[in-house]
Amino acid sequence: MQHFDCDYMEGAHPKILEALVRTNLEKSVGYGADEYCASARAKILAACGLTSDEGEVHFLVGGTQTNATVIAGLLRPYEGVIAATTGHVALHEAGAIEASGHKVLTIPAVEGKLSAAAIDEYIKAFRADEAWDHMVWPGMVYISQPTEYGTLYTLAELEALSAVCRKWEIPLFVDGARLGYALASPATDVTLRDLARLCDVFYIGGTKCGAMFGEAVVMHKGLIPHFFTIIKQQGALLAKGRMLGLQFDTLFTDDLYINIAREAVVQAARLREAFRAKGYEIYAESPTNQLFVALTAEQEAHLRTLVTFSEWERTADGRLVVRLATSWVTRTEDVDEVIEAL
Amino acid sequence: MQHFDCDYMEGAHPKILEALVRTNLEKSVGYGADEYCASARAKILAACGLTSDEGEVHFLVGGTQTNATVIAGLLRPYEGVIAATTGHVALHEAGAIEASGHKVLTIPAVEGKLSAAAIDEYIKAFRADEAWDHMVWPGMVYISQPTEYGTLYTLAELEALSAVCRKWEIPLFVDGARLGYALASPATDVTLRDLARLCDVFYIGGTKCGAMFGEAVVMHKGLIPHFFTIIKQQGALLAKGRMLGLQFDTLFTDDLYINIAREAVVQAARLREAFRAKGYEIYAESPTNQLFVALTAEQEAHLRTLVTFSEWERTADGRLVVRLATSWVTRTEDVDEVIEAL
Amino acid sequence: MQHFDCDYMEGAHPKILEALVRTNLEKSVGYGADEYCASARAKILAACGLTSDEGEVHFLVGGTQTNATVIAGLLRPYEGVIAATTGHVALHEAGAIEASGHKVLTIPAVEGKLSAAAIDEYIKAFRADEAWDHMVWPGMVYISQPTEYGTLYTLAELEALSAVCRKWEIPLFVDGARLGYALASPATDVTLRDLARLCDVFYIGGTKCGAMFGEAVVMHKGLIPHFFTIIKQQGALLAKGRMLGLQFDTLFTDDLYINIAREAVVQAARLREAFRAKGYEIYAESPTNQLFVALTAEQEAHLRTLVTFSEWERTADGRLVVRLATSWVTRTEDVDEVIEAL
Amino acid sequence: MQHFDCDYMEGAHPKILEALVRTNLEKSVGYGADEYCASARAKILAACGLTSDEGEVHFLVGGTQTNATVIAGLLRPYEGVIAATTGHVALHEAGAIEASGHKVLTIPAVEGKLSAAAIDEYIKAFRADEAWDHMVWPGMVYISQPTEYGTLYTLAELEALSAVCRKWEIPLFVDGARLGYALASPATDVTLRDLARLCDVFYIGGTKCGAMFGEAVVMHKGLIPHFFTIIKQQGALLAKGRMLGLQFDTLFTDDLYINIAREAVVQAARLREAFRAKGYEIYAESPTNQLFVALTAEQEAHLRTLVTFSEWERTADGRLVVRLATSWVTRTEDVDEVIEAL
Repeated sequence: MQHFDCDYMEGAHPKILEALVRTNLEKSVGYGADEYCASARAKILAACGLTSDEGEVHFLVGGTQTNATVIAGLLRPYEGVIAATTGHVALHEAGAIEASGHKVLTIPAVEGKLSAAAIDEYIKAFRADEAWDHMVWPGMVYISQPTEYGTLYTLAELEALSAVCRKWEIPLFVDGARLGYALASPATDVTLRDLARLCDVFYIGGTKCGAMFGEAVVMHKGLIPHFFTIIKQQGALLAKGRMLGLQFDTLFTDDLYINIAREAVVQAARLREAFRAKGYEIYAESPTNQLFVALTAEQEAHLRTLVTFSEWERTADGRLVVRLATSWVTRTEDVDEVIEAL
Repeated sequence: MQHFDCDYMEGAHPKILEALVRTNLEKSVGYGADEYCASARAKILAACGLTSDEGEVHFLVGGTQTNATVIAGLLRPYEGVIAATTGHVALHEAGAIEASGHKVLTIPAVEGKLSAAAIDEYIKAFRADEAWDHMVWPGMVYISQPTEYGTLYTLAELEALSAVCRKWEIPLFVDGARLGYALASPATDVTLRDLARLCDVFYIGGTKCGAMFGEAVVMHKGLIPHFFTIIKQQGALLAKGRMLGLQFDTLFTDDLYINIAREAVVQAARLREAFRAKGYEIYAESPTNQLFVALTAEQEAHLRTLVTFSEWERTADGRLVVRLATSWVTRTEDVDEVIEAL
Repeated sequence: MQHFDCDYMEGAHPKILEALVRTNLEKSVGYGADEYCASARAKILAACGLTSDEGEVHFLVGGTQTNATVIAGLLRPYEGVIAATTGHVALHEAGAIEASGHKVLTIPAVEGKLSAAAIDEYIKAFRADEAWDHMVWPGMVYISQPTEYGTLYTLAELEALSAVCRKWEIPLFVDGARLGYALASPATDVTLRDLARLCDVFYIGGTKCGAMFGEAVVMHKGLIPHFFTIIKQQGALLAKGRMLGLQFDTLFTDDLYINIAREAVVQAARLREAFRAKGYEIYAESPTNQLFVALTAEQEAHLRTLVTFSEWERTADGRLVVRLATSWVTRTEDVDEVIEAL
Repeated sequence: MQHFDCDYMEGAHPKILEALVRTNLEKSVGYGADEYCASARAKILAACGLTSDEGEVHFLVGGTQTNATVIAGLLRPYEGVIAATTGHVALHEAGAIEASGHKVLTIPAVEGKLSAAAIDEYIKAFRADEAWDHMVWPGMVYISQPTEYGTLYTLAELEALSAVCRKWEIPLFVDGARLGYALASPATDVTLRDLARLCDVFYIGGTKCGAMFGEAVVMHKGLIPHFFTIIKQQGALLAKGRMLGLQFDTLFTDDLYINIAREAVVQAARLREAFRAKGYEIYAESPTNQLFVALTAEQEAHLRTLVTFSEWERTADGRLVVRLATSWVTRTEDVDEVIEAL
């Protein structure tokens, strides 16, 4: 039985563990003011093509926490965040955004993606509405790269989204919980530098991409005043902050972050092709580390004997859609075994 | 030019004004502990068929405020409120529900109405979802009677809604901002007693039905502990509480509330028939004091010379839908004038 | 038995009632966009010495609501509001400020008043604290004029407070729920123009100074973007907004606001002198419409036979401090009766 | 130069690291549903003398987060939490409690401790106050063991606190961020079983007591319904939950938790005695791993050449109070070096 439930079933990449072990008894100041965090920040800014005058980097622990903290920091009380109806903040964060007082303004998405045109139309209609000032002002846009369906925004799409946000003077925030698998996908034409140029704030996911935990928020310098205090207020400030610095410092040394993600994407592609070849319906064209398969009852019964997975949703005709996720740990032989058994 | 922008363009019913004038220099204690509030509470409970052991009545100032206060009082942090996508709390309260930390869980509605079946399905799917505990728990149901489209739940529909809420053990809350026009509609088979029996909490709208301002919340005794303090916290506690008591005491004397609403419903029906007769498309079958008309460009141009109205939304093919609202003040001759000019 | 429980026991000043009656059947648009609101805004701005380019005026219904709305509009998530430990927002608003996510940072007050020096010291110590970014940033200052103890800030004190706020670049907000009684006190040297010049935002209380309800917020133009929507979100937007405009328009015609307050202050002074002459201990030197008396058990028993009042607090040695409030309705003969009986 | 800034300067106890390394490539389900979490829960319940029918254990990442999550879960909107003015939730959590809508009701403390009598008096006065329902209802009590000043509640004090909470029917919550150092102090007579018996909910701090991060909340079964979802909503749910389980499983094997804390307490006592012997003023009698010293300017200058520490506060006469914290890593020779140099 192979396990593809999710991409956070194992611990940390061995190089990260090694760094944690090597430095374990060193003493450092808390809350991210240590030298490992400083080093990680410098490497991340460099990878993003930003100087320390242009960008800033903050380390948080988990994804929902990061979304809630960034959004609470960006929005004013009368504002909400535009997101896809299938967006993580709209569905699977237990109301964390609303708990900080803000509405998630949902727009239907196609394969998890929001289009610039749909956002433009939404805001245009909002501002034209006689009753706009009785409604929640669209104050920012949230997208995920890759999306919750493993799909990718192209550079052209991202440029269009960025343009529409700048036109309406609202920030664009990219949830990169699985960003490594996007950057490493052969299907992408988007780089970290593109993200840094086109978004106002985004984060580089560690938890699902090789770290034990941790998300690195990259934002335009000064975008959210007092963000440190907001992180603290949201319970998102790790006391032993260097654990985050160490992990990201390791991931951003010798391209480890991309390299380990690439392998996961390769294995997911192999699985995807095998499913397709066996007549399974691939549900979303996701060129990253997740694959979605719509199963007949028979296929479902068979698949349950081979692998573990996540139940995702139901198709209109009632079939179960499941998600399989590979990770930096997934081995060729594990995938071989599944392919064979299919 | 006649004005049908909304049903709160005038002051208070003359009998209410008279009561305010008559008692103006009397002294009473604040915050609703006075005898006029006591009298109004007693009359409302009686009209609802509730004893003072069964029900309690609280007076607030406005509708959005009442919705936010009741919902904040009912929900626990992990819970949200189910509402129609067209529900007032979902759209036109500037995020007041989210401001108190709760998500509005929207379900598509037909002519403004939620069906018991849709709610049942929603909750069933929620509880069956593998990830339910990462999502917002449906903690109550919010509906409006009449709805935002002036439509009415029938007694059978209300009974079904009540049954589904009781099955899932969540309270049913009815926004009655325009309740008078529902109770007074010839199309309804729902009485105040039915509401008191089938809902856990509802309110009797004053602002739009003859009062200068004010909403009377009727709830099952003890449903929301410390509701007084929650009202205060929400800024919804009127210092000179007797102004609310006096108004509702007057409205619930000699059936004034229903009687004045009836006249508005009659005038709206006359207008509706006239529009229909002239080939205008009636947009929702609303047997209350609001009528919705989808206009061609030509019709729109003509209508703008005759009356003022609210712009409501656009039809799929781009036509403007407008709303005309009558009120207890609307006179037969005013309506005649419009009908003639149509 | 005379009643001095509070200054909101009666209805509205007769001229206000008259205006409400006179205009009752007129139709106007909702939410404060009508001509009565426009007129009231213009008169208030003029009284404050502000042009419509310099200031803006918003009408809300009650005091707690106004405090919560202004503070929620001004503060960012990491900020709190400095207030006296005895301040209304700190004690008697059921946690309305915290409900919008903000801490009330209390500083001990003397007779209800905060000193500029105490605020300066507080902020200096805060900024010098090694752990300042783990704490709530002082984001604004809240004071009341008159204070909760009926005392008054002098012009010099207000100038010092304003200077300290500007030095630290935080807004100064004055709760004027009883502002009329301050402006009308013979002891004051502070005018509306001074308030407009020295504060960033303040409000002119109607509820306790002649109106049936209503508070007029005066703020520097553009101080709180989208304040209308924030008012709506807080449930503080009156549908029939003209009721607020009419009341303030009346109060700001022919100095009615000050004139009716003056009479209340005179009567309170007469009572105060009478108490003092009879050997009662006056608890705070309040030259406005409230008086505070610390009672022995014997005095308490006697007083209870003569008047109704509010229980305020206990002195260190356990005696009851009571508050008597006069209002624009208090008659000379009522006060005479009490003085005689004392 | 020795470092005593705080007790979270190093990584994790070597046995924890070893467990993380050993299990690194194992696959487990997320969010704490794995077997390591199950094992840790069982060991913690056993150590607390609770059956799985009596208690439940939840793992969170950090202290502020845990306080905010538990308090948000326990309180209703109209309620606040009683805490010492020096309590962590009152001062150093950047307004995290207020951010979830609740007021911290502060009571002056002696050496960081609240007395049962003070709480009883506070609640009695609150309930006797004429205006109680305009104020925030005291809904729970928060204390820290050890306190923010390293002091300890005795068993008798804790029993009294528990009794007063039960008398008023509000839960007692103990912040145990440094609980190990309390349990291991020779000065204590309080055991884990006592805490489990006397509190409704408390947590066992990992971050400051040997773990890399992590806090274990122990609560009476069912105390907070849907607590898992509330944890998620607060951004406090670790995806790779087993990292928390592994750490606590290790700490609760062979009494590791207490044993490593004991050594820190011993070293702190040695330092404390040395300071006292050299004429330094010990500021609070803290028999745990923290010591507080009030320094003259001369002493401060000298000490800065020897060790790093935290600046805590100023005495009334302006001297700096500093805090030194030992931890499970502090070595005898490090302390020797400081003692000698003093």
